Amino acid sequence: MAENKMGRQTLVFKNCPEIFAAYSTAGVSEGKGPLRQWFDTVLEDDKIGQKTWEGAETKMLKDTVVGAIGKGGIDKHEIDVIFSGDLINQLMSSSYAVRELGIPFLGLYGACSTMSESLIMAGAFVNAGYSKYAAAAASSHFCTAERQFRMPLEHGNQKPPSAQVTVTGSGCAVLRESVKGCGCIQDLGRPGVYVTGGTIGKIVDMGINDSNMMGAAMAPAAIDTLETHFKETGKEPGFYDLILTGDLGKIGRSIVIDGMGKKGFDMTGNYEDCGCMIFGPDQDAHAGGSGCGCSGSVLCGYVFRRMKAGELKNVLLVSTGALLSTISTQQGESIPGIAHAVSISAEKR
Amino acid sequence: MAENKMGRQTLVFKNCPEIFAAYSTAGVSEGKGPLRQWFDTVLEDDKIGQKTWEGAETKMLKDTVVGAIGKGGIDKHEIDVIFSGDLINQLMSSSYAVRELGIPFLGLYGACSTMSESLIMAGAFVNAGYSKYAAAAASSHFCTAERQFRMPLEHGNQKPPSAQVTVTGSGCAVLRESVKGCGCIQDLGRPGVYVTGGTIGKIVDMGINDSNMMGAAMAPAAIDTLETHFKETGKEPGFYDLILTGDLGKIGRSIVIDGMGKKGFDMTGNYEDCGCMIFGPDQDAHAGGSGCGCSGSVLCGYVFRRMKAGELKNVLLVSTGALLSTISTQQGESIPGIAHAVSISAEKR
Repeated sequence: MAENKMGRQTLVFKNCPEIFAAYSTAGVSEGKGPLRQWFDTVLEDDKIGQKTWEGAETKMLKDTVVGAIGKGGIDKHEIDVIFSGDLINQLMSSSYAVRELGIPFLGLYGACSTMSESLIMAGAFVNAGYSKYAAAAASSHFCTAERQFRMPLEHGNQKPPSAQVTVTGSGCAVLRESVKGCGCIQDLGRPGVYVTGGTIGKIVDMGINDSNMMGAAMAPAAIDTLETHFKETGKEPGFYDLILTGDLGKIGRSIVIDGMGKKGFDMTGNYEDCGCMIFGPDQDAHAGGSGCGCSGSVLCGYVFRRMKAGELKNVLLVSTGALLSTISTQQGESIPGIAHAVSISAEKR
Repeated sequence: MAENKMGRQTLVFKNCPEIFAAYSTAGVSEGKGPLRQWFDTVLEDDKIGQKTWEGAETKMLKDTVVGAIGKGGIDKHEIDVIFSGDLINQLMSSSYAVRELGIPFLGLYGACSTMSESLIMAGAFVNAGYSKYAAAAASSHFCTAERQFRMPLEHGNQKPPSAQVTVTGSGCAVLRESVKGCGCIQDLGRPGVYVTGGTIGKIVDMGINDSNMMGAAMAPAAIDTLETHFKETGKEPGFYDLILTGDLGKIGRSIVIDGMGKKGFDMTGNYEDCGCMIFGPDQDAHAGGSGCGCSGSVLCGYVFRRMKAGELKNVLLVSTGALLSTISTQQGESIPGIAHAVSISAEKR
């Protein structure tokens, strides 16, 4: 079975699980940003008629999963498993969203790295034949995250320029077995989008303990995973049309470019960060967007659609997570970072 | 690849990933219970010399993982991935424990179902050749869980008889590829212990919203997963020498026996619950033990050792989780339950 891995951390999906449907939802503010045209749904009201913010995030995630399944033209009872996670304690949003769907559920926690983690898991399960259809999802909501991790919303808390804004958004991708084997199916003349593998990240902690400096806390993990991915696969950054980190924001992104450059990998040509893309310069988003829903909504909207349209052929998504909690912060602990990479291809291989 | 699944929810591991080492740790109180002889380590002090309870749980889990790797006679750098989870917000114990080990990490949240979830994942990854060695772990600590989910410890909170006691304990199993293929290796004349498959659970919520009634909240999920497992595999309860739910306690266990009986499955001969086993009748544990560390420490101690000794041949572990949070409880939500089943065999198949 050695053909299913490369080196220690990289999985290879020879059976090319196909992302045959994806759905993205963005909040009001995110829907006013540069990516507005790529989301399937932009909320008109971030509370979506619910009594609580947690209820709103739950409804957003559930509607996103239902949307993805609907776009795939299958029934929810055909999905063998859903991998999902979010930022709320005990995965409240995912658990309550999935509760109403009757889909077998494996809960993940990877902080903002969740979209990569769920996509690797779903790819691994479909590739190995454990699941015929598997869903990968992630969500975050500014109002649930802000009050859980920082201050009550009513406090109107101010933040330093290094802080990031938790994205209200969610994404869900539905994967299926490639019908004819190795990833070369063309779907109605448009390219299929395949998960070709992933690199599982290690925790990297460089000692940063300021939760308003998350990009800098997570960037070393992104560098570690990127370097491992390139070394284990033998690929160069130039292999990809687009390399996307999850939510490093402006500060973390510049650390990745510098750090990878020092290791001999030129990231200046094709590297972007979802947290830098989702809000415009006029939106007062400080260092950029963050949250599981940041890379979740960008992947399942912008990236998936551009790949389906043949505009992007090879993409590496490296969602990044800061594994802190309010308790760890209060206890003076530094912030462990993690990043998982998932490679996606719309090209014959 | 259809040979790797049965029905919608059940995975089949034909390559028989082997649990070749396991380690269990129990707290002071758990070490005075009926299973005391089966734990690898019994803590002399639940704080283990740390400044905080969270630090103690982190150290306990890390020492357990290191113990399992050491018993396997391999180096931590040989482990390709660790799947781990705990009850603390944002998986604080797992994240900080793994941070110091340098092992690629995929975080899971399944509440007290985590040991089954991590074992299914590790089995799935080793079976498919994604990992040569994979670790599965879970932990809980009375003092971290109590103050997070209920009251400050200093409050000396009293509980109704239906409540359960969070177990201070952890377990880690290390899996490897079966050297000769299909699960028939005999290790120095003693049986190998193999993960042969798993059934991924659905969320079941029967409307219970009393967090002092967790056994009753989780039991319907256990029944759903057990029934699905038997239907999809064509096995009867009698196939197993031991069927173990995770932490239903006395109340949940009796609901499972009744509920399964009504569905035509006789559970009276070979069914036990880790939460009922871990504390003795003199230990004032109310309805029994709970927490990820309950089934984690029972599996990696009692079950693994008895299987290695040839005393148990086929075991089904059904760890059970209550997917509530303090926020969901405060908002009046009912408690979603989940249960995953993992089948383990020390027998030639």
